[in-house]
Parts: sequence; C-alpha cells; structure tokens
Amino acid sequence: MNSKKQFILWLFWYRKSVVRRSFKVTSSFKMFVKLFRKCAGSCSFIGDNIKQVFRNYSAESHDGAGLIYKEYGDPMKVLKKVDHVLSKSTQSHPMEGRVIVKMLAAPINPADINMIQGTYPVKPSLPAVGGNEGVGEVLAVGDDVTSFKEGDWVLPSSPGFGTWRTHMMCKPSQLKLVANDIPLISAATLAVNPCSAYRMLKDFEHVVPGDVIIQNGSNSAVGQAVIQIASAMKFKTINVIRDRDQPDMDALKKHLKSLGATKVITEDFVRKPEMKDLVKSLGKKPKLALNCVGGKSATELARQLENNGTMVTYGGMSKQPVVVPTGSFIFKNIKLRGFWMTRWNQENFKNPESQDMLDELCELVRQCKLHPPFCNLSHIDNFQDAIATAMKPQTNRKELLIMDEKYLDWRYE
Amino acid sequence: MNSKKQFILWLFWYRKSVVRRSFKVTSSFKMFVKLFRKCAGSCSFIGDNIKQVFRNYSAESHDGAGLIYKEYGDPMKVLKKVDHVLSKSTQSHPMEGRVIVKMLAAPINPADINMIQGTYPVKPSLPAVGGNEGVGEVLAVGDDVTSFKEGDWVLPSSPGFGTWRTHMMCKPSQLKLVANDIPLISAATLAVNPCSAYRMLKDFEHVVPGDVIIQNGSNSAVGQAVIQIASAMKFKTINVIRDRDQPDMDALKKHLKSLGATKVITEDFVRKPEMKDLVKSLGKKPKLALNCVGGKSATELARQLENNGTMVTYGGMSKQPVVVPTGSFIFKNIKLRGFWMTRWNQENFKNPESQDMLDELCELVRQCKLHPPFCNLSHIDNFQDAIATAMKPQTNRKELLIMDEKYLDWRYE
Repeated sequence: MNSKKQFILWLFWYRKSVVRRSFKVTSSFKMFVKLFRKCAGSCSFIGDNIKQVFRNYSAESHDGAGLIYKEYGDPMKVLKKVDHVLSKSTQSHPMEGRVIVKMLAAPINPADINMIQGTYPVKPSLPAVGGNEGVGEVLAVGDDVTSFKEGDWVLPSSPGFGTWRTHMMCKPSQLKLVANDIPLISAATLAVNPCSAYRMLKDFEHVVPGDVIIQNGSNSAVGQAVIQIASAMKFKTINVIRDRDQPDMDALKKHLKSLGATKVITEDFVRKPEMKDLVKSLGKKPKLALNCVGGKSATELARQLENNGTMVTYGGMSKQPVVVPTGSFIFKNIKLRGFWMTRWNQENFKNPESQDMLDELCELVRQCKLHPPFCNLSHIDNFQDAIATAMKPQTNRKELLIMDEKYLDWRYE
Repeated sequence: MNSKKQFILWLFWYRKSVVRRSFKVTSSFKMFVKLFRKCAGSCSFIGDNIKQVFRNYSAESHDGAGLIYKEYGDPMKVLKKVDHVLSKSTQSHPMEGRVIVKMLAAPINPADINMIQGTYPVKPSLPAVGGNEGVGEVLAVGDDVTSFKEGDWVLPSSPGFGTWRTHMMCKPSQLKLVANDIPLISAATLAVNPCSAYRMLKDFEHVVPGDVIIQNGSNSAVGQAVIQIASAMKFKTINVIRDRDQPDMDALKKHLKSLGATKVITEDFVRKPEMKDLVKSLGKKPKLALNCVGGKSATELARQLENNGTMVTYGGMSKQPVVVPTGSFIFKNIKLRGFWMTRWNQENFKNPESQDMLDELCELVRQCKLHPPFCNLSHIDNFQDAIATAMKPQTNRKELLIMDEKYLDWRYE
C-alpha cells in the first residue's frame, strides 16, 4: 500500500490556476502507473446469475460487479448492484481473442439516465448494465490479441457497453486505446463530450483560424469542451449562457474566459442591437453555430450565422423545437444539421479518424489545453447518491463512479 | 403576313389530353421559324430618357419599350410603360461584342412583384425594368459574337435582367441558349420553376429510381414541375395539397396524377395514422422533402423523412417559420437546407451544368413529359390587368406578358 500512497502523492499536483481544476501530469506518473496497476484486481465480484445479463448486453462480458436494471424505469428504483467473485484464473487467463478489462471510472451522463428510463432512442435488451462511457485498464489479453496489452487504458468503442461495472471480458473490437499518461478523470470523460465538441468543430464547416463559432448552453460539458478545443485551434467563440445573478454571472464569465472563450454573453444580449457591434468587433460573422437548447435560443443562433453557415443541433435543453424563418434557408442558405456522438461512433467504428481524434484530444489534455469537467467522485457502492445528484436539473458537476476506493483519493475541488 | 399566319396554324396542335394544356411541336416548326423571324422587329419603341434606366439595370441594354419603376412600391402605381422608336440601323447592326434581343414573352412571378415592392432580397438600383424571367429571340449579333446567331432563342443567364421590355442590347454572357423548337410558353417559363424543381431533385440527395420524395404546395408551379420531372426520372412522389371542396379536390387530384404524381394527399391526411400505411405501400420512406409552405406543414414533412433525409425549403407560403423537433436532427440525422434559383444562377453562371439542365428540360418538353403551367396571356400594353391578376392570392394560372400581338393567338385553354 505504501507504493500506492506514494503514487497518489506524486500523481498530480493541484493546479492553482484560474481554472482551479486541471491536473498537470508529472513525468513520475509513468513510473508509478506500472506499480499501481499491480494492486488492481482485488475488487472483482460478480454473481453467477448476472453472467447471462452481461452476455446479453452489448459487450460479450462476464465476471465483475455491475449496476444492472431488469426493467426500464426510475433509475433510483430499477438499478441494482450485483456482485460476484471473479476467479483469479479467469482474470489472468482470458479466452482466446478476448480481453479482460478492469473498469476504473465511469461518468453518469444524461443519456445513461434516459436509457434506463427507456426514453432514449437506444434501448438495450433487458436485463442490462448501466453506463456508456468510462475508462478501463487491460488486466490480461488472450494469447492471440495483439492490439492491446496489459496496462493499456481503454474506452468502449461503441455505445451500450455497460460501463458501470468493475470487470468485463470483451473482444478487442469493442475497445479503443486511450493514453494512460493523462488524468483518470480526463480519460473517463473524453469519449462523449470532448469528442462531440471535436467532431462538431471538424465535420460541418471548414473552419479555419480566425473564424467565428457561436454556441448556446456554453456552460455545458460539451460547451466547455468546444471553448477549449476551439481556442486550441485558434477559432474565436461567442458563448451564449442563461442569465443568472450577478456574482454567479461574473464567476461563470471569468471561468469560461479562462478556458479560452472569446466572448461570453447572455441569451438576452443576443437579441439586442449591441450584438451587431460585438460580431463586428470579431471581424467575421459566425460560420458555425452549435445548439443544445432549441426554441428561441436556436432561432437567435441561426440569425447570427453568416450566409451559407451551418447550425448543428446536438441537444434540446429547453425542450422546445428548433424554429428558423424560411428566409434564412432560402436567401441566406443556412444549413441545419444534427449531431449524435453515438451515431458517429457506430458509423466510424473502423475509421482510423476515430483513434486520431482520441490521440489529438489526449495531446490537448497533456498540454493543459483541455481540462476535464468538474466532477463529484463516488464509489460504485454509493451509486444511488450519485444517480440522485446526476438527475437534479442544471447540475454544474458531473457525477463520476469510481470502481476502486483507492481512486477516490484523486478527488479535487 | 401570310407566312406568319401559316406559321401560327402549323406551329402547335392543341393536345387534347387530360392535361389539356401541352403543345406538341411538329417538325414543320423549324421550317417556319426562319420565315417568322423575318417579320420581327416592328414593335421596337423606347424613350431616350429610358436609355440610362436600362443601362443602370443589370443588362447593359438600350432601345425598346419597357415597364419601369423609379421607386419601390405598389406595382399598380409605380410601374409605367415607356416607349421609344428603335432605329432599324441599331437593330441590325449592334455594337461589337453585343447581342440585340427581341423579347417574346415574360411571366409575372411572385418574386418580380416583391422586387418592385422592395421586399425582395435582390434590390436593383432605381429606376429599373421589371421582370426576371422570359424568352427572347436574337435579332442581330456584333461581328465578333460567335456564341449566338440570329434566330436563336435566349433566356437571361442571371436575375435582375428586366425582361418586361421589347428589346435590349446585351453581352453574350448575359444570355443562355434555349431550344427554339419548344412551345413559346414552355421556353418563357422554363428558367425559374422547372429549373428549381430540377436542381432540388438533383443537388441535395442521391435520389435513384424507386426512391420517394414528399412535397407540400404540390399544386404550385414548382410543385407541378417536381411531379413531372420526378415522374420522368422514375421517382415516386407524395404530394401534399391544401384541403378544398370535394369537386375541386377531385379535379386537382386527377390533374396532378395525370402529370405523374404517385400519391396526392391533404395536409390533414399527413397527420393521420393512415399516413404510415401510405408510406409503407411505397416501400420506402421519403429521402427528400421539398417545402414551400413552412409552419406545421414543414414539421409534418420533416417527420415523414427517413433517417439521414433532407428537407429543402424554397418558399414560405404560410408565412410561418420552419419548426422541427431537436430529436429529428440528433437521432434521425435529418438535414434542413434552402434553395434559391437566383443564387444557383449567380454561383453557376459559367458552369456547363447550367446549359445541360436547360437542354435536359427542353428534351422533357419535346417528349411531352414537362408541360408549361396554365397561363393567361396579355399584351405588354395591358400589363396593369395582368399584374393585378398576378397579385391575387392563390391564383392557379401564371400571367404571361406577350411583347407582340401576334403571339397572343397562341393562347390555349
């Protein structure tokens, strides 16, 4: 245990910057990772009765403890933890062509909640394991597996993986490699929000340095990733946020600007004549708009676009539809598109661009240009509190399930 | 004059089909065209004071009679006819690099009205000549002009041409060649509505024979062109129309089906559960939706699209914006685009695709697969009655200005 404590002490130093939340990774990290991993594998439980559950669920998996649901409904009621002892021999000697993964951390995203409620467009066959995102560590690989090795960090390659569990056995094709020299929280939250932001900035308009992007819901996890990635790519961003009390507003503006936001404005401001001057001051009208709100907010975003610009909708927080005047389509030639990371992953499963994206994002993390979101860390045993918090409206922090107590020491404020 | 009368008698025969409005062009047409053209040139008037007007207006033009407006406003008040005698020598000896065109016929489109009212996004400098579409005949060409010859039929190559006049002198680049063996009315109304329909069917989705297209406002001039061109291309069409009294409804359904419509349904029907069966009966969900209505009608069109489908908005008859739920963008990946023929022409001015499109549409006209819309023909002197009729809401006929009395004999019912 001494080695583990030492590891934790050395792992990160708290970066007392304006952001107050990023990690800098020391060169000592790699030295300790190897040592640290050797301690893993002691929390592997799963019941015989759950084997079939995991097998039914997308990843061909077995052995581990997991949060499962046998019916769709309120996650507070239908989600149960089931344990089983994973035999040491299975851990260290997986089947041919299979990989044993020990999950390290997995966030609770809104889509995970909707999936359990049965309101999400992807409905896993029941019973199912909760969670779609998270980072795991390869414990062992079958003799013929060459794409992964012990100690690698991995992410699920497709949705419906069931990440809220401690262990699984799966095929190499179900995994993507992620760097293991970045903070655990960054790795655990990289596949959904930063990847969504990255793709939306890359795939819809040919945005070049100096170009302008406008987005609403800029304080969301995707919104913050957009600000950071856009800033790293030298794009200017106009970031629209909901109105709030002045002290909160000042703090939020300061925070988003510290991430790289060019301008931070309220929904009301966008409708004012002064908005014209703000856009003028940037030298260009926005080429790309990213909408996760809908309703009037989306209408205003579309109105700000330059001719031939694109608005990408990836969320609908206001629960209002997207409303755009016909003239914007006809005379301004604006385009409306949608983005869903799940679909992109399904369609680009074997596309090398998928791994390139992860590598590029990891590099931004290493350069401290992409910080993970604020997170509350909870041990998987305390999942009910975490789920309850995640279901509160407009929470500013992401709930992260930690599969091993020792990782809880990485908590940061 | 005998030759002209003979020409008119031989030119078309009235096609007593269900459509009751198309022309078949005999092989004798070409024989008489040459003779007929020799009679042209006797109605050339324009005032000296209007020369500058025409020069200011997009086409570098002079000499002729034209309908001009010196201020934006009610076309019934601001539009005036100005005459001037065009000298025979100018007619037959144009400047080097210039073409003398005698306009034959020009429709009154809604965009022409809006342009005079000053509400259209394209605002010509004043004073200006009305009209953006129409067919003319080349009377003479400058010695160094090789792309056109006497007797050719031509269309304006870009908007703002000012087609409501009898003569003009312009550059070859301002003209596009159109076949002169098709009915005059087809040629005069080809550049806006059929070209819009053609482009929307070609440019947004890869539609192949057997694929399904859904459109609203199907009785509009573009809507009818969509039905015919889609039918010629072996695409299936679901055509949505407004509800109306039963006898009118039956007649309209019969008419649209005679043009090649696969299904004709009302706005109400689209919202009914039976709509699902109708789509099922076609074997595929629509890949492309064409919207000229907006509001609820557009929402329903978008709802019918298959995953990854596109809705193209080219009009907004309901004066309501386009409203689409966020989920359609995110989970169905539908795309919303706009189309404006004016922009296409501006951007594809030198694109050979522009001439290919005209040639292909002319071939459809020759094959009687693309009929001109129902038209009321008026001599340009009676433009006020024609404009008044064109401004009535939901008129089913297009008003066509005829520049020479003799062409009025081509009227058909």
